[in-house]
Amino acid sequence: MAKFLRVNMTDLTAKYEDVPEKYQMMGGRWLTSSLVADEVPPLAHPLGPNNKVVFATGIVTGTNAPTSARVSVGGKSPLTGGIKESNAGTGWSQVVARLGIKAIIVEGQPKQAGKFWGLKVDKDGASFFPADEYAGKGLYEVYPQVLARFGDKVDVMAIGQAGEFKMTMAGICFNDTKGRPTRYSGRGGLGAVLGSKGLKFIVVDGAGAPASIPITNKALFEQGRKKLTEAITAHDITKPKGGLNTYGTAVLVNILNEAGGFPTRNFSSGRFEDAANIAGEAIFEGNKQRTGKEIYNHACSPGCIIQCSNTWHNADGSEMVSCQEYESVWALGAQCGIGSLDVTGRLISLCNDIGVDTIEAGVTIGVAMEGGLAKFGDGEAAIRAVEEIGKGTPLGRILGQGAAFTARAFGVSRVPVTKGQAMPAYEPRAVKGIGVTYATTTMGADHTAGYTIAPEILGVSGKVDQFTTKKGELSRNFQSATGLIDTTGHCLFIAFPILDIPSGFEGMLEECAGVLGVSTEEISAIGNKVLKTERAFNEAAGFTKADDRMPEFMKYEQLPPHNVVWDVSDEELDSVYGEL
Amino acid sequence: MAKFLRVNMTDLTAKYEDVPEKYQMMGGRWLTSSLVADEVPPLAHPLGPNNKVVFATGIVTGTNAPTSARVSVGGKSPLTGGIKESNAGTGWSQVVARLGIKAIIVEGQPKQAGKFWGLKVDKDGASFFPADEYAGKGLYEVYPQVLARFGDKVDVMAIGQAGEFKMTMAGICFNDTKGRPTRYSGRGGLGAVLGSKGLKFIVVDGAGAPASIPITNKALFEQGRKKLTEAITAHDITKPKGGLNTYGTAVLVNILNEAGGFPTRNFSSGRFEDAANIAGEAIFEGNKQRTGKEIYNHACSPGCIIQCSNTWHNADGSEMVSCQEYESVWALGAQCGIGSLDVTGRLISLCNDIGVDTIEAGVTIGVAMEGGLAKFGDGEAAIRAVEEIGKGTPLGRILGQGAAFTARAFGVSRVPVTKGQAMPAYEPRAVKGIGVTYATTTMGADHTAGYTIAPEILGVSGKVDQFTTKKGELSRNFQSATGLIDTTGHCLFIAFPILDIPSGFEGMLEECAGVLGVSTEEISAIGNKVLKTERAFNEAAGFTKADDRMPEFMKYEQLPPHNVVWDVSDEELDSVYGEL
Repeated sequence: MAKFLRVNMTDLTAKYEDVPEKYQMMGGRWLTSSLVADEVPPLAHPLGPNNKVVFATGIVTGTNAPTSARVSVGGKSPLTGGIKESNAGTGWSQVVARLGIKAIIVEGQPKQAGKFWGLKVDKDGASFFPADEYAGKGLYEVYPQVLARFGDKVDVMAIGQAGEFKMTMAGICFNDTKGRPTRYSGRGGLGAVLGSKGLKFIVVDGAGAPASIPITNKALFEQGRKKLTEAITAHDITKPKGGLNTYGTAVLVNILNEAGGFPTRNFSSGRFEDAANIAGEAIFEGNKQRTGKEIYNHACSPGCIIQCSNTWHNADGSEMVSCQEYESVWALGAQCGIGSLDVTGRLISLCNDIGVDTIEAGVTIGVAMEGGLAKFGDGEAAIRAVEEIGKGTPLGRILGQGAAFTARAFGVSRVPVTKGQAMPAYEPRAVKGIGVTYATTTMGADHTAGYTIAPEILGVSGKVDQFTTKKGELSRNFQSATGLIDTTGHCLFIAFPILDIPSGFEGMLEECAGVLGVSTEEISAIGNKVLKTERAFNEAAGFTKADDRMPEFMKYEQLPPHNVVWDVSDEELDSVYGEL
Repeated sequence: MAKFLRVNMTDLTAKYEDVPEKYQMMGGRWLTSSLVADEVPPLAHPLGPNNKVVFATGIVTGTNAPTSARVSVGGKSPLTGGIKESNAGTGWSQVVARLGIKAIIVEGQPKQAGKFWGLKVDKDGASFFPADEYAGKGLYEVYPQVLARFGDKVDVMAIGQAGEFKMTMAGICFNDTKGRPTRYSGRGGLGAVLGSKGLKFIVVDGAGAPASIPITNKALFEQGRKKLTEAITAHDITKPKGGLNTYGTAVLVNILNEAGGFPTRNFSSGRFEDAANIAGEAIFEGNKQRTGKEIYNHACSPGCIIQCSNTWHNADGSEMVSCQEYESVWALGAQCGIGSLDVTGRLISLCNDIGVDTIEAGVTIGVAMEGGLAKFGDGEAAIRAVEEIGKGTPLGRILGQGAAFTARAFGVSRVPVTKGQAMPAYEPRAVKGIGVTYATTTMGADHTAGYTIAPEILGVSGKVDQFTTKKGELSRNFQSATGLIDTTGHCLFIAFPILDIPSGFEGMLEECAGVLGVSTEEISAIGNKVLKTERAFNEAAGFTKADDRMPEFMKYEQLPPHNVVWDVSDEELDSVYGEL
C-alpha cells in the first residue's frame, strides 16, 4: 500500500504514514486539495507555520498510461489567500509514485530563518541534507550541481531565489527529461511557502523501485490506456507532427490574435501588431533557419506522446531556452509590448533561473510599464526588471510579489487579476467563457481551471460564439472536467482528444477505474467533489461572491479591436458554483 | 439651507446642490458613510474613477459648542478595501460649515494623470486653480506658500507627496490654529484617493460667512452646551491643566506600559524598557528644561477647551514639531524599539511633511525592521526609511503602502493588522476589549472606533478587567457611542467626561437636538445606524466574518510580560455585529 510521507520542518523529521481510508481513492488535485482543506486552517498565514505544501501524484502516474507524469502541488496560496493547486509534468512524479508514496506533506517551520534544507527520498527512505550552499544561486547553475552530487538519474524539485525571498510569484520547479529546470508548478506562489519552510529541494531516486504502481484491474486499465492512446494520436492538435508537436502551445498566438482576444500592453488591446513574430510558426521557422533543420517538439516528461515542449535557439544554432510556451511568450511578450522571441527567450530563461511563474512575471512587468517603470516594448528594461527580482532589491521585492501588488506600488488601477492572481493570455472581454472561469475558479485567474477556449476559439467539443455571455454552465462543465483530469495525473492537453473522441474519454475513466479497482462512474464523479472541497476552503478563508468578479476596469474600458466590455451578468457568474 | 458641494474632477466642475431630505439630519461620519454607501459601488477600485471622497462637518460644527471642530472624511479605502471614515480637528471644518456647506463630494478622475489642482471655496462660490507648482514638495514648505497666496485667514486641506504617489498610508492634512500642517484624517489612505483624482488642496475662506450655522432650538442647544462644557472642565482627564492639557495624549505611555499592553518591537512584547523616555511626562519635563518654562498644551482647532496638542522643542528651545501624540510616539518609537523623543519628533515632522499616517508609518517601519531593513532601535535608519517614502523610491513605494504590504514584500508573517490596517498602540492580547474593536470595526484596526481602553485601563465609565474575554457587548457599545460622537462633530475626547458624568452626555444630545430641532432620542439612535450602514457596505465589498479576526500569530505567540495569547472566541467576535 502506498504511504504518505510527512515532512516536518520544525524538527526535521520525515515519517511514512499509512494512508487513511478517506484518501485511498484520491490522487493528484483531489488529494492535494483534500489534504489542504483538512489540515490547513483556512485563516492560517500562508507563510506561517500552519500552512502546508502537499505534493501528490495522479491516480495513474507511475503506470505506462500516456502523458500521465503530472505532479499536483497544493497549499494555501500567499498570492490569492485561497486554496491553490498547481501541477506540472515531470519524471519526478513518476518516481515518487513508484517509490510507493501517494503524497508528500511538508509542514512546520524552522525556528532559524534563512537556513535551507534538501530532502533526499529513495527506496530506503527519506533524509535531510543542508542546502545553504545552493541558496542565492540560479537554478541553471544549481541543477547540474545537484544532479552531479546525487547522480544523473535522480529527479529534482527545487525553489529558486524568488522562493527563498518568499516572493508570491515564486513557483516550484521540476526537471524535464534532460535535467533542465524548466517544468513549473508555477502559479499561486507555492514556492514562497516552501521558502518560508526552508525546504529548497526534494531529490527523488527511483533506483530499485518497482517499474509501475500496483494496478488492481489490469485488463480494464489496459483497455483504457489503448483507447486514450488512440484518441491522442488521432486528434489534429495532439497527434505526432500535429499542432502541439510542431508549433508548441504558441500555435495559439496567431489564433487568439486573429480572434481579438490576445491581451496586449497590459490588457489595453486584444490584438498585437507583432504577434506573428512570437507565434509558434515563428518558433518553428526560426529554429529551422538557425539550426538548419526542422525540429519537432519533445516530451517534458517520460511517457508523454503529445510532446509539445520546444526549444529556442540562438543565432549560432546553440540552444537558448526550453521552452517558449504560449503563456510565456504572451506574458513576457505582447503583455509588455515585446515582439521578439530572442527577448522572450531570455526572459523565460531568467524566470526559470530565479524560479518564478512566467505568467505572473510578465503581467507584472506590463503593469509596471503602465505605472511608468519603462516604455512598453523595451525588452532590455524588462530583462533588467526580472533580474532585480532575482537579486531581491527593493524594486525586485515589489515585482516579485506579482501584478496586483505591483499595481498598488505604482498606483495603477488597471489591474488584470482575479483573486489576486494575474490573468493568462486570453482576454475575457473578447472571450466571455474564459472570463467566467477566471472570475469563478477557486484558483484565481487561471485558464487551465476551465479551458472554454476549446469550444469558444478552437472548435473543440463543438463551437460556441466567443462573445455570448451565457457561459456559466459551459465554464462549470469545463471546471469540473478539469478537476477530474488534474486528479488522474494526465496532462490537461488530453482534453482536446477526449472531448472530441468519446472513446478517449472512456479510456481515461477506465485507466483510473482499472488502477483503483472501482467503477468508471465513481471516477466520473470526482470533478465536482474537487471543486466543492476547494470552494468550501475558500469560503472559510473569507471569499464571497465579491471575489468572483472581474476587475472593475473591464466593465467600463472598451477593448479594441471589437470594442467590447465585460458584460457577463453577476447572476451568470454566481450560477457556476451556485448550481454545482 | 446648507448645500452639498459636488466637485467633479473629470470635467473640473464644482456645483452646489440642495441636500436631499434623507441627509438633512446627518452630519460627520453618519453623512460621509451614508454618501459613500449610496454613491460608491462597493467593488469600485479605490483609485479608479468611481470612488469618491466625501468631507462632512459635524452636526454642531460651526456653532460655539466646545471642542466641536471635527471634519469627517469618507471614501472606499485603498488600504482596507472597505468603507473608511477618518476625522480630524481643524478650523477648516468650521469654515466649511459656516459657508453653508454640509458636505463636499469629490468624484471623477482627470484623463491626464500627474496633474494637480486646488479648489478655493469662499462665500462667493468654488473655483479651481492649477496646483502643479506645489506638487513634489513637503507640506511644511507648501502650507506657508498657500497661506501667503490666499491670505493668512484661510484654512487648507492638502495631500502631500505620499498622496500624489497614491500610497495607501497617505492621509489628508488640515492646518492647526497656527497654520501648521499637523492635523490629519490620517487613517486608511484617503490621501491616495485624492491623489488619484488630482485634487491637492481645498482652500476655504470664511470671510463674510455667518458666525454660526443655523440653530433651530437655541435654548435647548445652549442648555446642552453648558452641560457639556461643565463636564469637560470638571473631568480629571479633560479639565484645564488636567491629564491631556498637561501631558497630552502621551500621558498614556507609562499607563499602557505598566499594564503590559504597550506593543514593542513589532508586537513582540507588551512592555518597552525605554517607555518613560517617550512618555507625556518626559515631553512636559523636556520642554521645561529646553525652554525654561512649563508649557501646557494648546488647542488644535478654534473652540477646543480640552487643548491637548503639544509641541516639542529642540535643545536650543526652538520648536521642533507639533505634536508628539501618544499614537505617534508609540508607532515611531516603541514599535521600532526607539526610545528618544528627538527621534520620534523628527519622524513625526517627516510624516506631517510628506503626508502620511504616523500609526501606519511607524508600524510599517517596525515590520520592515523585523524583515531585516534595519535593527530595532536604529533611529537614523527609521528617518531614512520615511524619507524614502517621500521620494517615491522603490523602497519608499513598498513602505508607503503600509504594514501589511511591507510585510509581504519582506516575507514577514507577524503582521499586526486587521482588514489590512495597522494596529494602534494597544496590545490586544493584553487588553482584550480593544482587540475586539480592532477585529470587528468596519474600519480595520482602529482604537478610536470603540475605545474600550477607557474602562479596561483608565477606569473611565467603570472598571473592567483587561484580560477577560467577554468583551463583545462592551466593544459594541463603545463602537455605537463612537458612531454618534463622530457624527456630532465633537472630538472623541469628550467621551471621557460624558461617560463618567451623565449630564455631559445629555448635554451633547441636547446640543445636537437643538441644532436640528429634533428629540434627543433621535440623536441617541444615530450610532447604530452609522455602524449598520458601514457594515452593509463592507459586506457588499466582500467582507465576511473571516475579516473580523485577529492576525494568526497572536493566537500562538505569547506576549510578554503577561505571556498571554489572543483567546477571545470567534463567537464573541461575531456577537458584536450579530447582535447590533
